[in-house]
Amino acid sequence: MAQDDLQLMRDLVDNQPDGFALPRHFYTSQDVYEHDIKAYWNHSWIWVGHVSQIPNPGDYFLFDYAKESIIVVRDREGEVRAHMNVCRHRGSRVCTEKQGNARVFSCPYHAWTFDLSGKLRGGRAMGPDFDPSKYGLFPAQIRIFEGLIFVCASEDAPPIDAGLSELQTHAAPFDFANVKVAHEASYPVPANWKLALENYMECYHCAPSHKEYSRSHSLKDPAEMEGLLEPLQERSCAIGLKTEEVNQTGTDSAGPAADVYWRRYPLFEGYQTGSKDGQPLAPLLGTLTGFDGGATDMQIGPLNNFLIYADHVVGYRFVPTSLQETDIQIVWYVRGDAEEGIDYNKDDLTWLWHVTSLDDERIIRHNQEGVNSHRFEPGPLSDMEWGILTFYHSYLAMI
Amino acid sequence: MAQDDLQLMRDLVDNQPDGFALPRHFYTSQDVYEHDIKAYWNHSWIWVGHVSQIPNPGDYFLFDYAKESIIVVRDREGEVRAHMNVCRHRGSRVCTEKQGNARVFSCPYHAWTFDLSGKLRGGRAMGPDFDPSKYGLFPAQIRIFEGLIFVCASEDAPPIDAGLSELQTHAAPFDFANVKVAHEASYPVPANWKLALENYMECYHCAPSHKEYSRSHSLKDPAEMEGLLEPLQERSCAIGLKTEEVNQTGTDSAGPAADVYWRRYPLFEGYQTGSKDGQPLAPLLGTLTGFDGGATDMQIGPLNNFLIYADHVVGYRFVPTSLQETDIQIVWYVRGDAEEGIDYNKDDLTWLWHVTSLDDERIIRHNQEGVNSHRFEPGPLSDMEWGILTFYHSYLAMI
Amino acid sequence: MAQDDLQLMRDLVDNQPDGFALPRHFYTSQDVYEHDIKAYWNHSWIWVGHVSQIPNPGDYFLFDYAKESIIVVRDREGEVRAHMNVCRHRGSRVCTEKQGNARVFSCPYHAWTFDLSGKLRGGRAMGPDFDPSKYGLFPAQIRIFEGLIFVCASEDAPPIDAGLSELQTHAAPFDFANVKVAHEASYPVPANWKLALENYMECYHCAPSHKEYSRSHSLKDPAEMEGLLEPLQERSCAIGLKTEEVNQTGTDSAGPAADVYWRRYPLFEGYQTGSKDGQPLAPLLGTLTGFDGGATDMQIGPLNNFLIYADHVVGYRFVPTSLQETDIQIVWYVRGDAEEGIDYNKDDLTWLWHVTSLDDERIIRHNQEGVNSHRFEPGPLSDMEWGILTFYHSYLAMI
Repeated sequence: MAQDDLQLMRDLVDNQPDGFALPRHFYTSQDVYEHDIKAYWNHSWIWVGHVSQIPNPGDYFLFDYAKESIIVVRDREGEVRAHMNVCRHRGSRVCTEKQGNARVFSCPYHAWTFDLSGKLRGGRAMGPDFDPSKYGLFPAQIRIFEGLIFVCASEDAPPIDAGLSELQTHAAPFDFANVKVAHEASYPVPANWKLALENYMECYHCAPSHKEYSRSHSLKDPAEMEGLLEPLQERSCAIGLKTEEVNQTGTDSAGPAADVYWRRYPLFEGYQTGSKDGQPLAPLLGTLTGFDGGATDMQIGPLNNFLIYADHVVGYRFVPTSLQETDIQIVWYVRGDAEEGIDYNKDDLTWLWHVTSLDDERIIRHNQEGVNSHRFEPGPLSDMEWGILTFYHSYLAMI
Repeated sequence: MAQDDLQLMRDLVDNQPDGFALPRHFYTSQDVYEHDIKAYWNHSWIWVGHVSQIPNPGDYFLFDYAKESIIVVRDREGEVRAHMNVCRHRGSRVCTEKQGNARVFSCPYHAWTFDLSGKLRGGRAMGPDFDPSKYGLFPAQIRIFEGLIFVCASEDAPPIDAGLSELQTHAAPFDFANVKVAHEASYPVPANWKLALENYMECYHCAPSHKEYSRSHSLKDPAEMEGLLEPLQERSCAIGLKTEEVNQTGTDSAGPAADVYWRRYPLFEGYQTGSKDGQPLAPLLGTLTGFDGGATDMQIGPLNNFLIYADHVVGYRFVPTSLQETDIQIVWYVRGDAEEGIDYNKDDLTWLWHVTSLDDERIIRHNQEGVNSHRFEPGPLSDMEWGILTFYHSYLAMI
Repeated sequence: MAQDDLQLMRDLVDNQPDGFALPRHFYTSQDVYEHDIKAYWNHSWIWVGHVSQIPNPGDYFLFDYAKESIIVVRDREGEVRAHMNVCRHRGSRVCTEKQGNARVFSCPYHAWTFDLSGKLRGGRAMGPDFDPSKYGLFPAQIRIFEGLIFVCASEDAPPIDAGLSELQTHAAPFDFANVKVAHEASYPVPANWKLALENYMECYHCAPSHKEYSRSHSLKDPAEMEGLLEPLQERSCAIGLKTEEVNQTGTDSAGPAADVYWRRYPLFEGYQTGSKDGQPLAPLLGTLTGFDGGATDMQIGPLNNFLIYADHVVGYRFVPTSLQETDIQIVWYVRGDAEEGIDYNKDDLTWLWHVTSLDDERIIRHNQEGVNSHRFEPGPLSDMEWGILTFYHSYLAMI
């Protein structure tokens, strides 16, 4: 890792003009990328899954990003825990299956064995002075918000708890704790993770790039949306939802990367949910009593974004795999007791965000191609791109 | 980018002994490669195509090298222009099709729209203070020499105009302005672009490496060529050609990378052109009145090389795509009114430089493999490799 | 190459605690990797083959590692020589076939021609002042130990001669000079070469990772092995073997990377050799008069390891091809006059170390994955991993 590259990065951070995109260096330097992972991702809350994926003691799954791997497991006492998937002996992955049920985690190299809480059980041939209590798996932090599992690889995680409490009253009627995974999909894009995230943070591109989304979602046109807000709020109240916005992002957040955001916005007339024909896709979530024709943008930390309809939830994350490779990972959740083929059709459910993600892959890819040019100069952001600035707020503070 | 690597490069530049190949570092360092693009390629004239490819207003094609992309387009007034293919907003490619006809260039991301002359037409949701005139596409410079299009991505292009005038009187009888593309081919080679270019700059390797070429082209043996020059010049005069050499290269050029070169040399007896059997391949070019059994090496800037027979022209460029990946791009031109299948046969036309390029791919690849060794030490150049030194002259001055 | 990375490496070398694995940086830095090749590999003895592969003058084979290539050839006088495969003119590989018979090595680029002893024969068009004697192929050093060929790319090779003499009396009864190659195989693993080598240097992982090996080889359990040693030594004496151990490794070696090691250890009852069923696999080697049910670990320099049964020898090397790509190369040798299909069956012969290498590929790969994590911290080594420390002894001294 060259100090030159990091020094250049720091100079650019100091001189970043407000209201402009970031310079090329942030998207093209291997050193900046590795620093991103160490300084930003390892210190951020990352949404990794849902409690319904690990109902029983010993159930686990792995979540990987960059070169990191985290084991998320339900322990003997029923508590969900997260461990860094790195043996404390010589560093092998201790768990190599993506998901399963384990009694213990026994390293496949030299059989150092850890219990579900991460404690090392002795150490073969390690001599009399060896103290196993010093060599448990490194823990990752855990937060569970309405069944959604978040982890942070470091000890100083962003102060998200107050924000989560704020969101909780809004989220309660949807009862996320009792949803289930209907589908998961991954859209790899040859671009830096920040370009993928920035794409999600603004709807300035929706009108030109997403014709299916723009047909039904008013967010693409702030002026038009404005006129539809009041009628929506009446309908939302009627089905049991709170209508206030939560916007603790950027400078208004409790700390860098502790952003929380909640806003319900109108679909166009004739659309009850994010479906092709406007008709419902799945049973109503939680305690909702009907469709209000709205959709909620929920953000928990800059890295975790959710779109909440009355009958399903779509979660997004933008997982870096290398400097210019990012996995756009999407999970569709429906009511926990909904049955595929009876209560919902998977192709219909996933149609909108599948076609939209294919568009996004294309435009993010072309964005990276242009940013790679030596002649790229960051331009001014539009009024509709304020979300990018809230992301920069934490990014520039943490790196 | 590490200052260490660039410092080492500069030390090597200062100590480069005359008459020797360059050291390993120039062919193996990622930082030197990126510097090559910024300091040498972005400041050089690059042959990108021919006016016949874009006859009508709105016709365009893209030319890519390294991470750069340039739009070459004929504007409404019929003028050929070149724009950097980078949106001035957030950097996306504004044009993603390799060629076509466009009324405007509308960025696929947020629809910032540029006219054919590169001017930005307003900016949606950019607020009242936004000045579109500041955000037109960055222009690339253009020179058109006898229909051949050259671009330079920076403002301080090499002073090539006097050299082009000098060449013009020699080139006139061939009427390049009225040729057409008969075939294009690309030979990717896993080697640094400089090794590919150096390969073209000398014929010391012709005898051992190119048996087809050496059968017909006397350049492979300077002594033998000498004896054939005078009879050739008589024949050249007879068909309407000037016979003086133009050699403004290296220290004799008008400035770094402003080299121009023109020399007609003899084919062996029985060869009227660069064909397998010595027979003509296509109709005579321009105003020529016959075959003289010669071939012209024309160079316009170190990066652009042409081989001119009486009935066709072969252009070469060596386009870097990464540190050790180069695309050898070849274009065969014939008289504009020649018809394939009637006036020329494409397989026959392209035979010689297809087989020769396959040989070159192999020897350049093995060259890079050896240069990658820590034990590589640059050796002395032979008398037949002076062309490499003319390239080094501009390269060492500009990086 | 960034000085930062090498400076960090040197700081880590200075502070490396005894008895612990190396930190992440040694396995993840491109600069450290390139330094490894220059400072360690190019200055180490590398086992490259056996004299039986090049019986006649002009017979040659290439040995490649990292970006280096070495020609091993028998010259006109019958002597085995090694040359760096880099032309002294412009650096091309002079030899591009993996093996063959040559009268001379003529560079495929410009036909500079070297005789089998590496001398340059003139230089076409090089002018009157050119002195060919200055431009012979760079020699690599050669040692032949009982027919096994070792090379070192630099002039200051590790002082291995005394150690080889020590080994010679032990090795004599096996008559390695008269073995032949029965099979060669390559197992590429996506890991740094040091992780592959470290894997071979300890049998702490044998019990958990290699069930086939552990069924027959007592090395996996030092306590159990201890009890079997004395009976083995009696049997070894009976078939003509010396039973003393040679252990000049680490701090006891004649110099960095001059390690030599010889130890015969017991197979479990019922196993005469490393076969699936314990039965012989090939004719007895050399002057042995029977099977003793033992196996010898022989090491010549840290990079070269051999496992010697009474009827065959298995050689291992761990050849770096890039930062995190290593080729595990294995050669099986049998008595020179043994005939395949009659005296030995190739599938049976290679079974054990084929399945064991597949296991190793998997565990080394998972080791690299975990070491790549930013949270990896090197742990303490067990009593069974002392071999790794002997490797670190030379590694930390030479880089």
